[in-house]
Amino acid sequence: MSRMMEEIREQPQALRKTFEAERAHAVEFKKFASRRDFRLIVLVARGTSDNAALFGRYLLEITTGIPVSLCAPSVHTLYGTRLNLRHALMIGISQSGEGTDINSVLKSARKQGAFTVAVTNEAKSTMTRVVDESFLVRAGRQKSVAATKTYTGQLLVLYLLASALGSHIELDAVSEIPGHVRETLRLSAEIGEMVERYRYMRQCAVVARGMNYANAFELSLKLMETCYVVAERFSSADFLHGPIAMIERDFPVILFAPPGKTLAGQQSLIKRLKGLNAETLAISSVETRLPGVTRMIRVPGKMGEIYTPIPYIVPGQLFAAQLAEVKGIDPDRPRSLQIVTQTF
Amino acid sequence: MSRMMEEIREQPQALRKTFEAERAHAVEFKKFASRRDFRLIVLVARGTSDNAALFGRYLLEITTGIPVSLCAPSVHTLYGTRLNLRHALMIGISQSGEGTDINSVLKSARKQGAFTVAVTNEAKSTMTRVVDESFLVRAGRQKSVAATKTYTGQLLVLYLLASALGSHIELDAVSEIPGHVRETLRLSAEIGEMVERYRYMRQCAVVARGMNYANAFELSLKLMETCYVVAERFSSADFLHGPIAMIERDFPVILFAPPGKTLAGQQSLIKRLKGLNAETLAISSVETRLPGVTRMIRVPGKMGEIYTPIPYIVPGQLFAAQLAEVKGIDPDRPRSLQIVTQTF
Repeated sequence: MSRMMEEIREQPQALRKTFEAERAHAVEFKKFASRRDFRLIVLVARGTSDNAALFGRYLLEITTGIPVSLCAPSVHTLYGTRLNLRHALMIGISQSGEGTDINSVLKSARKQGAFTVAVTNEAKSTMTRVVDESFLVRAGRQKSVAATKTYTGQLLVLYLLASALGSHIELDAVSEIPGHVRETLRLSAEIGEMVERYRYMRQCAVVARGMNYANAFELSLKLMETCYVVAERFSSADFLHGPIAMIERDFPVILFAPPGKTLAGQQSLIKRLKGLNAETLAISSVETRLPGVTRMIRVPGKMGEIYTPIPYIVPGQLFAAQLAEVKGIDPDRPRSLQIVTQTF
Repeated sequence: MSRMMEEIREQPQALRKTFEAERAHAVEFKKFASRRDFRLIVLVARGTSDNAALFGRYLLEITTGIPVSLCAPSVHTLYGTRLNLRHALMIGISQSGEGTDINSVLKSARKQGAFTVAVTNEAKSTMTRVVDESFLVRAGRQKSVAATKTYTGQLLVLYLLASALGSHIELDAVSEIPGHVRETLRLSAEIGEMVERYRYMRQCAVVARGMNYANAFELSLKLMETCYVVAERFSSADFLHGPIAMIERDFPVILFAPPGKTLAGQQSLIKRLKGLNAETLAISSVETRLPGVTRMIRVPGKMGEIYTPIPYIVPGQLFAAQLAEVKGIDPDRPRSLQIVTQTF
């Protein structure tokens, strides 16, 4: 079994451990945050962690009402901009905690008045030393080049942070996520058979909106780095502004289609794509088959839309890891990549 | 000649007209803005206009020091979030001014305390009626489905807004941009010959960083909608975090490589890609040939990095419009697209 597959399977335990270990920390942080009057949240990350940041962008803004910005690191590192960050909370996200540019942004933001928080898998990393407060993902050392358990762990910590920032996140619902992931892992064999169909897929688009938008980026990144599939990623809304023109028969579209606010739009997109003779593959916990869809991966269990992103990425991880093997690629040895990538 | 090509060629005049007409307005707005104490800028747009917003994200943050956020419209339209937008300036960007979701976000942001500004090509659009203040792109009616003159017009207005928000943008340097664009249009025949090489290109990546990052999105969108090329777009820094694994011999990478802060990184990326046997095509005003590059489009003239994005997108527009014709596609009739796309 590949390391990537091993780490995918470690997720229920890693998520449980992260939740149990950081829950009390979040409650403690809530008292502090209520006194600080944060008026802006800035998220800063790279690679897979930046996809977690994109999730945080939606989760935190929707549940706390505090405006959120995704940091452009070069604004700080290359252009040396000094921002007014009083009343800002800056959250750095990094698996290793050793991304030089991210740490440099956190350091300079702290000088510019921001309160800085690290979300990392490595307690003794540089990142934990440069910030005011650290929340730890307890996923165990990441050995796979393609991040899986650290991505979902970062998402889980972001739920805890949302809760600490006064949102209506229900920690009981969050505590059920590891169980949903365990159930979803049972789809492994079914997805292993399904990937046969995609053996010769060279390109695809992954489309989502709202809470699962970040998952479109994350699944697309997994397909690019482990399967060398050219995977475009779009918000369903932006997809209609141009990119849909390139869709044709051999260009499948993978959609995240959770119950909730985005479902109607995803359903009408599936129908439109059928009209263009494009195949679709939907990841959904909706119980009935979505009309017009070519293939569907049904995520088991019932959960509110806001709690779907962690269970929903799991079929995507299983898909990428197993498609890589069917394509004869070792997902643990992607061409041209290392675990820690340095940017200056 | 295609309408797209006609509108590309109208740009020097459209930019000159926009600059002359809105310059005094920006000076006037500066007095107002200095009294308002804006602490956050939020940009909201879709499609090509969202690429202009991405440019604004860098320009405004780097030159004003005010934190900038790119709005996720669904946070407002689907999830009905109420944000604390006191001291926020929200800038909506839309060619037609009729994007229903963008206008709805502007309306609700105004209720939540934001001062709202429209940047649009249509003076009598819905957008100009729902905002506090409108800045007009004077590009004349857009008839091409693929936006070109309105994109560069939006960028020009964003320079004026940056100047109004107290940045060090030199209006004299901005006034030179239409002339740079006129010079750059002379590359048309050269690029028309160059696109022959790319007749059978089916996929590529467009890579940039910082001030030209938005141009990577914009060129990639033009290639997707007018040439049906699967064009990935990345920041050079994120590109190394995974996507570079998919690069191989038949996967060319187009790079924006202006002189300035991002040049060293782009040059080292070109060398790395050469090592992977990938072709590169650089758009640059650097006078010498970049070492290791396969093809280069040299933008004429000397300009500071911050003033490069408008002239630099022009070769990309000429490339997409002429590649479409070489591929036998009418760039004015992209499959499945209309000029005004509605999202709900």
